Amino acid sequence: MTEERDPGWTDWGLLEPLAASAGATSDDAVLEAMIDVERALLRAGGDLSVRDADTVADAFRPEAVDRAALLEGLRTGGVPVIPLVSQLRAMAEAVVPGSSSSVHAGATSQDVLDSALVLVASRTIRVARERLLDTGAALVALATNEVQTIAIARTLGQHAAQSTVGVVAAGWLDGVTSAIEEVDSLSFPVQLGGAVGTGENLGPDVRAVIAADLGLDDPGRSWHTERSPILRIAASVAVIAAVLGRIGRDVGFLARTEIGEVVLGATGGSSAMPHKRNPVDAVLLTANGLRAPGLLATVHTAAVSQDARPVGEWHAEWAAFRTLLRIALESADAAASMLSDISIDHAAVQKSRAISPGLQHDEAATIAASQRVVGVAVRRFRSLSTKDPR
Amino acid sequence: MTEERDPGWTDWGLLEPLAASAGATSDDAVLEAMIDVERALLRAGGDLSVRDADTVADAFRPEAVDRAALLEGLRTGGVPVIPLVSQLRAMAEAVVPGSSSSVHAGATSQDVLDSALVLVASRTIRVARERLLDTGAALVALATNEVQTIAIARTLGQHAAQSTVGVVAAGWLDGVTSAIEEVDSLSFPVQLGGAVGTGENLGPDVRAVIAADLGLDDPGRSWHTERSPILRIAASVAVIAAVLGRIGRDVGFLARTEIGEVVLGATGGSSAMPHKRNPVDAVLLTANGLRAPGLLATVHTAAVSQDARPVGEWHAEWAAFRTLLRIALESADAAASMLSDISIDHAAVQKSRAISPGLQHDEAATIAASQRVVGVAVRRFRSLSTKDPR
Amino acid sequence: MTEERDPGWTDWGLLEPLAASAGATSDDAVLEAMIDVERALLRAGGDLSVRDADTVADAFRPEAVDRAALLEGLRTGGVPVIPLVSQLRAMAEAVVPGSSSSVHAGATSQDVLDSALVLVASRTIRVARERLLDTGAALVALATNEVQTIAIARTLGQHAAQSTVGVVAAGWLDGVTSAIEEVDSLSFPVQLGGAVGTGENLGPDVRAVIAADLGLDDPGRSWHTERSPILRIAASVAVIAAVLGRIGRDVGFLARTEIGEVVLGATGGSSAMPHKRNPVDAVLLTANGLRAPGLLATVHTAAVSQDARPVGEWHAEWAAFRTLLRIALESADAAASMLSDISIDHAAVQKSRAISPGLQHDEAATIAASQRVVGVAVRRFRSLSTKDPR
Amino acid sequence: MTEERDPGWTDWGLLEPLAASAGATSDDAVLEAMIDVERALLRAGGDLSVRDADTVADAFRPEAVDRAALLEGLRTGGVPVIPLVSQLRAMAEAVVPGSSSSVHAGATSQDVLDSALVLVASRTIRVARERLLDTGAALVALATNEVQTIAIARTLGQHAAQSTVGVVAAGWLDGVTSAIEEVDSLSFPVQLGGAVGTGENLGPDVRAVIAADLGLDDPGRSWHTERSPILRIAASVAVIAAVLGRIGRDVGFLARTEIGEVVLGATGGSSAMPHKRNPVDAVLLTANGLRAPGLLATVHTAAVSQDARPVGEWHAEWAAFRTLLRIALESADAAASMLSDISIDHAAVQKSRAISPGLQHDEAATIAASQRVVGVAVRRFRSLSTKDPR
Repeated sequence: MTEERDPGWTDWGLLEPLAASAGATSDDAVLEAMIDVERALLRAGGDLSVRDADTVADAFRPEAVDRAALLEGLRTGGVPVIPLVSQLRAMAEAVVPGSSSSVHAGATSQDVLDSALVLVASRTIRVARERLLDTGAALVALATNEVQTIAIARTLGQHAAQSTVGVVAAGWLDGVTSAIEEVDSLSFPVQLGGAVGTGENLGPDVRAVIAADLGLDDPGRSWHTERSPILRIAASVAVIAAVLGRIGRDVGFLARTEIGEVVLGATGGSSAMPHKRNPVDAVLLTANGLRAPGLLATVHTAAVSQDARPVGEWHAEWAAFRTLLRIALESADAAASMLSDISIDHAAVQKSRAISPGLQHDEAATIAASQRVVGVAVRRFRSLSTKDPR
Repeated sequence: MTEERDPGWTDWGLLEPLAASAGATSDDAVLEAMIDVERALLRAGGDLSVRDADTVADAFRPEAVDRAALLEGLRTGGVPVIPLVSQLRAMAEAVVPGSSSSVHAGATSQDVLDSALVLVASRTIRVARERLLDTGAALVALATNEVQTIAIARTLGQHAAQSTVGVVAAGWLDGVTSAIEEVDSLSFPVQLGGAVGTGENLGPDVRAVIAADLGLDDPGRSWHTERSPILRIAASVAVIAAVLGRIGRDVGFLARTEIGEVVLGATGGSSAMPHKRNPVDAVLLTANGLRAPGLLATVHTAAVSQDARPVGEWHAEWAAFRTLLRIALESADAAASMLSDISIDHAAVQKSRAISPGLQHDEAATIAASQRVVGVAVRRFRSLSTKDPR
Repeated sequence: MTEERDPGWTDWGLLEPLAASAGATSDDAVLEAMIDVERALLRAGGDLSVRDADTVADAFRPEAVDRAALLEGLRTGGVPVIPLVSQLRAMAEAVVPGSSSSVHAGATSQDVLDSALVLVASRTIRVARERLLDTGAALVALATNEVQTIAIARTLGQHAAQSTVGVVAAGWLDGVTSAIEEVDSLSFPVQLGGAVGTGENLGPDVRAVIAADLGLDDPGRSWHTERSPILRIAASVAVIAAVLGRIGRDVGFLARTEIGEVVLGATGGSSAMPHKRNPVDAVLLTANGLRAPGLLATVHTAAVSQDARPVGEWHAEWAAFRTLLRIALESADAAASMLSDISIDHAAVQKSRAISPGLQHDEAATIAASQRVVGVAVRRFRSLSTKDPR
Repeated sequence: MTEERDPGWTDWGLLEPLAASAGATSDDAVLEAMIDVERALLRAGGDLSVRDADTVADAFRPEAVDRAALLEGLRTGGVPVIPLVSQLRAMAEAVVPGSSSSVHAGATSQDVLDSALVLVASRTIRVARERLLDTGAALVALATNEVQTIAIARTLGQHAAQSTVGVVAAGWLDGVTSAIEEVDSLSFPVQLGGAVGTGENLGPDVRAVIAADLGLDDPGRSWHTERSPILRIAASVAVIAAVLGRIGRDVGFLARTEIGEVVLGATGGSSAMPHKRNPVDAVLLTANGLRAPGLLATVHTAAVSQDARPVGEWHAEWAAFRTLLRIALESADAAASMLSDISIDHAAVQKSRAISPGLQHDEAATIAASQRVVGVAVRRFRSLSTKDPR
């Protein structure tokens, strides 16, 4: 079976250590989203009775899609929608004779693929947001617990001034809150414009109906070559990767052998050095933070589009956009995991501080400032987290 | 004088064809913004009487800054703020003896440079938004005038289906409206956190006072290493470059010798081919659209920061962020300029269409769809443009 | 079985239209390369008799690797080598009791993964080079056949001057030749440095022996954090994507409905517009050309490394480097495919030319120049293609 | 005068701390290179007597160019060559009446600008190579002096195994040697193809003559849209930024307050914290290492070109390519400066090592390995540095 499904290559996660948490972005997940869009199109089209439409929609079974045929058609036609529609039409015909022409009626490939990728984005971001809330909650606890823990703050690698561990955690929390604010401001618009974006062969309210069916937003227009909705989502998930990458960078440093102010729970070993306990989550958060910018650049380059569908730019967007979503979800999961088992070594904090006695001064002012900073960060996060997630 | 001001290099626009419109992002503009921030700090600090503070603030004259000394200090210290503060303190002392210690009191270099760059962003985007409104207004006229002009729509380089010129213009307008929506959703937060972001040596309301003085937002916190405010601004100006880059791409094609559906006004010549009339604005809009993604990637990479100020990331952000602002302003200006003198060659539109007679059909349905699409785009733009610009 | 192999996600090519040709870069291919490296390490180590080493090496069967266990260990340890070595040791012990400690002796995870990725690069580029030679041969024929076909040359979208179709093909050929020159100048160094790059626990000539066994180069040193060998390979495969992306761009334009100077063979359909014949290969070549730069940026960002192995940068490199290789191979295959069935519509060429009669002049001088240009390009390519491929 | 030269903006280095060393990449340097190319064209053209050609070439005075007029023409025509040629023709006519038509004869704007940028690259890289040689020499001394200094090596932020300071320095040296190898393998081809790249109006040997005159290579062809020569140069200077960025990253860490194994000489202060001594060079090397990848991505994106001159891609390349050169030169200078005054604090090295007594073992084997590693690195560098620089 694997052979049938793999005329070219299969990536099963060998080079993606955080793969286990990113199933929402798999090819199977995209395929399911494409089929969900075709179901919604079918139901909104109005060609079939409600009963027949439901029967056909139920007959669209993702696991029954002949992936080898799909990939062959993808190679020939450049989009996976054409060969998928052929198969869905056959599935439809098998349960409701004469229904095949109602499948994909009035739509174009880009309607289905764009809508499916936005649906994957919406689903992925919903999960990532949950993990960001977990991350934020852990940081609220950390910042609150350590609000009075005097520590040295560093700038440009040098001891700079007296601060607290709570302030550091509040800074991380601010990033998480900003990331959630980012994704909460997003719109997830369905794409529906037909052959060239005018929706000429589509009924008047069909876009709104499909959007409602899929739980997406109705943008009131086609955005075939106006890619700002994609740019906005891409930039927001890149922010997730960035703010969590920064936490990884900080934790990776604070967990260094010489510093040890942060102690991580489960940590990785080494093939050559069994004594080592590596801060794997911090490493991978940093790595994902460094991977996202290049992908974001690709999505932006692809937005310099042309015509009603361009010669290459749209195709360049798919994998980069999907991988950005994947990275954000992975990082949100890894951050929540890392912060669920993090602790502060107060002796180590004190030891670092003692290196620069000249920077020690009245602790009351520092703690008062720390309480202000932590208080602001906690309130900012709480104002978000009480909202009902999308 | 030039020699004194140029111990290293000077870029005066030789490789930046749209430079003339981007003065708001020049080094002089950044220097003025830095001085504006120092003035606001001085007034908010409360050390001096209001009268003395105003006297000192007036004595901070950008044109009197010794740029050579500033660059020398920048090379030594890595930030331009330290040598600037030295000069400002001398200027202060000259008019109000004893006032020098009140200059830059409680602040750190990053407070001044971050705030200044956000101020430059705010000023640049305000101008760019005006030009986007001009661009949008021109596109409203174009889309409305050509709403019934049947034209061929192209996908993947091939004639695809019947549409109108109005629909094409509406697509461009949608991009412009999206870009304005982007920038209208921005916050321009002042930076104020003192040495390590806690604001320990700053008075309680000083951030709010400074923000109000500068016309910036008070974020209620320091964002020294939580760079999402910068990422958000950077992404938005990159969207400006992208949507205008797409217009450039489309216009560059439609103005091709073989197509000629779009006719541009003033166009450029050629050193080798005096007969040529090049679509210079379209070329430069496309170029700027392709330049922005790499710079956005740099700003995102720089956000994977560390400590209370990182070893390199913050410094990597400056030039990329400024150049992104510059590109957006240039493109907004060039787009407004190009669209102020654009016309449609109806015979050429008809000639293209005639190549694919098989795609011609009932015009009424196409025009009805065009009227819907154009109407939505125009209303969407108008809902923005009636708002008072920031 | 699929379920066992997929605790996270599987990508089987749904968003990668050219996947079918990129098997050399699949996760299975990387896994095989990792095992090849472990085999070479085992044989070079000298702990076992030649006979025992061969027995154990034969017992390392990629298809028997428990991928679920591998992915679980990858998530925990951050590298896939640790769980792989555990499994290989068990395989070894089963056929030669006592041999497990000889597996991976003296090496570290990075030795295996870096060497495996370079091996995958070497194998991928070898195949890509063959397809580039095919592409070049097709272009030699095209350029030679059309050396006298007068055509209009365009600059900035405008008719510029008289040239020939042969000159255009020669320009494409120049790019292909340059790409082959690039990859022919590459070194594919094995990585071997042990725990921290000094090779302290490795025998004196072991690196050279392993390099010879694997068909890789012996760099004479470890390059654990000196990533210029990776940067060089990455840049070269990005050049493949770029020069073929340009051919895609040109062909996409020349095959446009209004131009039609180039006619492609098998072309793709459309889900909404069955009449359309899309230049799919040109679209995908352009798309890959636009995807490569962001990935190259990531590999370069990851090169700003630290310590004997960094906290994130190395991990950020893996997927970007592999995807660059994949894109180059896909594009080489698609270009060869596209150019194996391309033809020139001479009437269309003449029709374009006729639009600008003022640019027509003495054909003899143009043809003479064309013959020079084509001759240079053909000779340059031939000087390469006669070399024995690596 | 400054006002006349600045109708748009002027960047004089405010946001570029290393500007002082990058004069070879200034706009004035580019303008001089453009004029050098026009001089070479004039001499090679053969229209004028040798004496007249020399008279005219001498009359081309960069400082006399009316920059405001040049920028105005640049805005209108999109390239700075057209308005420059007008001025040069007037300068020619003033000294040799009738000579103006011999200026720029047979060439196109792209010939002049591409050749000028390659000339700037060649000149910039020649200087950068000198500074890389200085950097390498300092590292040879450091590695040799510290070859026996046992130190702890770190991986993923954790103490990993015993090594030496010499090995660390050898790793840095390897990067420098690789960067020099990169630039030594470069070709700096002149561009000459006339209007559409065929050289139809140019004499037979004129390209070779001009190349020789300018000290550039004769590529035997035009590469107007075959941008691999630019990609190759861009990738190589990005390697300079990367390998020096890594040294910055390592030094920034080793100079941290808690570590202190590396002691830097002249270091920067802080506007808020006068006690601090910041590792400014390390900060800026790291920053430049992070800035280069996005610019390299832009140059690669711009290589997906079209026609005999594309609608935007070529224009997108200019600033990114120039800034990459600038960054490389700056970093080479800063690295040489930093390493000219670096020392090792042996007590600090010993203190770090003492944290992990379990990793201490027989020093002889470690020193022997260190001597091998350092020896290889030193010999590799010396084999380069004895070559006559280009």
